[in-house]
Amino acid sequence: MEKSLVTEVELIGRLSERLLGKHPLLVQGIGDDAAVWRWEEGVYGLVSADTLHEHWDFDRSYHALRYIGYKAAVSAISDICAMNGQPLFLVVSLGVPRGTSASQLQELYDGIREVEEKYRVAVAGGDISPSRDLWLSITVIGRVEVEWIVYRKGAAPYQIVCVTGDLGAPYAGLKVLQREKAVLTHDPTAQPDVKDFGYVIRRQLKPEARCDVVRRLKEIGIRPTSMIDLSDGLAAGLHSLAQASGVGFHIYLERLPFHSQTARVAELFQIPLTAVLLYGGEEYELLFTVPAEAHETLRNEPFVHMIGYVKEGKDVVIEDGIGQVWPIEQIGWDSLLGERKKEST
Amino acid sequence: MEKSLVTEVELIGRLSERLLGKHPLLVQGIGDDAAVWRWEEGVYGLVSADTLHEHWDFDRSYHALRYIGYKAAVSAISDICAMNGQPLFLVVSLGVPRGTSASQLQELYDGIREVEEKYRVAVAGGDISPSRDLWLSITVIGRVEVEWIVYRKGAAPYQIVCVTGDLGAPYAGLKVLQREKAVLTHDPTAQPDVKDFGYVIRRQLKPEARCDVVRRLKEIGIRPTSMIDLSDGLAAGLHSLAQASGVGFHIYLERLPFHSQTARVAELFQIPLTAVLLYGGEEYELLFTVPAEAHETLRNEPFVHMIGYVKEGKDVVIEDGIGQVWPIEQIGWDSLLGERKKEST
Repeated sequence: MEKSLVTEVELIGRLSERLLGKHPLLVQGIGDDAAVWRWEEGVYGLVSADTLHEHWDFDRSYHALRYIGYKAAVSAISDICAMNGQPLFLVVSLGVPRGTSASQLQELYDGIREVEEKYRVAVAGGDISPSRDLWLSITVIGRVEVEWIVYRKGAAPYQIVCVTGDLGAPYAGLKVLQREKAVLTHDPTAQPDVKDFGYVIRRQLKPEARCDVVRRLKEIGIRPTSMIDLSDGLAAGLHSLAQASGVGFHIYLERLPFHSQTARVAELFQIPLTAVLLYGGEEYELLFTVPAEAHETLRNEPFVHMIGYVKEGKDVVIEDGIGQVWPIEQIGWDSLLGERKKEST
Repeated sequence: MEKSLVTEVELIGRLSERLLGKHPLLVQGIGDDAAVWRWEEGVYGLVSADTLHEHWDFDRSYHALRYIGYKAAVSAISDICAMNGQPLFLVVSLGVPRGTSASQLQELYDGIREVEEKYRVAVAGGDISPSRDLWLSITVIGRVEVEWIVYRKGAAPYQIVCVTGDLGAPYAGLKVLQREKAVLTHDPTAQPDVKDFGYVIRRQLKPEARCDVVRRLKEIGIRPTSMIDLSDGLAAGLHSLAQASGVGFHIYLERLPFHSQTARVAELFQIPLTAVLLYGGEEYELLFTVPAEAHETLRNEPFVHMIGYVKEGKDVVIEDGIGQVWPIEQIGWDSLLGERKKEST
């Protein structure tokens, strides 16, 4: 990719200019978490695709095939959640190296089946190709009522910025797994030392999409004004919403939610906790904005953390505990730079 | 894949048993050219995915990137045609090796754009992943009026078997291109000797989906009783329709349509022409059955060739010019065996 300086987002943007991307039924194509089309009166269809590729997105020495299937499906579903929609069908394309046994593929499919049950979606089709590496590309089709759809654009000054769950755990889990792999490579008889890190490892291996949040927000009558999932990390998510909405963000460091294990991993690996929370990525939590009036309703919702506010301009900044304000860099867990980033951190 | 004895069709069948594949909106999942769901009153939605993978499905020494993009999109669209439907949107997932330049990717996208224009579809989304090899997985969404949908099942005894266009040309084109590559590898200054084979080469490099046939059949009021595309070849197509419909087929060898260049290639490479026509594959012509009454209407349609009839039982046979009847083997251009087949023929 031209000396690896081009990110996936930039590249897709540049390439999509080559395309027409126009259809009478298409409301919005490339550029959000999912494409949007007219399904029927009052309902939009949604479609998105996500790929997990061996070596870049997973390592078979610690990612069991069942979890790879699970994660690939969840990661696709998460894009539908980010549009405030409901996932329906999955189409599973698989690249399979020679030597892969049918029982290994069955493990992979068992993971996808678990997603079918948990998220009430159905695998509707797919194909299998021979390949040098294992990869899964899952397309998901969903739907959403027209009045409930949420795009990346729509955030306006003085609205509240919210994030679900806690941040940085999948990245912390990856660091622990990588360390265990290194130890085992050196001494195959070593016992894995992961008992204190069960939570972050689970978040890395078996993430969940926040369809529960989408349902709950609807129940309490709150439609976010903008939303994105955190597959590329909080920093990248904030910048995407900022650019799409033409606004800036002011975030409070002390409001960022994290699990105690995440903090312990940051300490253990001497990575600044702030960096883990901002740039960790691979998490399928939701980042969204709501009108200021939603404050009263949301303060009683345990899954939502109000972490800052929307501001005019286009700066995305974070305020630390002593009132210092810093810019949040526009970097993320970019899939094209993923390997390099994993190596360099 | 367990000593490569498992075909893609068998494997998908076995794996899909692990899945639930159930949803209130889903009419039919895995098992036909596309999955079918309830779109709105009187309309079904269709979705299917197709993958082209370097080394197995194309060779960059003679498949230009623009054509690879074109062919991947056409191959996906063809699955919608095979359901008698109309393609609408494409979702393009791309695996891109390091070192691929943005301009190379643009070429690929230019091919896809040509499909957007020609077939009036829109690329609605997609993603790009780093990969060791180049691959494209394209998901296509389409729709069809409920009363016009055609499945693989539905053929009944004494109906007529039809095929569109001519057979074997893409395979013949591949043989010519492979020969030219071998010559050029041996003598880089050699001039390619392909001028007599323009038609079959074009059919290999730049195939077309038969959306025109779908439209024309509707115009003349004919709904096929069963249909499939010939991406895996005529033999595989016949067996798929036979199994899905619970019938057999009687085909007349002398009725199989072919181009004179295809016959010349068969002669040149000393491959029996019958084998090229039956097992060639990679063609996006349609194979379908119609009620006997359609005979009068179809005999004036230049794109349709009536090649035999549906019979009771489950035998799929071909009758040669002197009245001998032979079984048609159930083999095809199977993507998982593709490489081996290419090498061995």
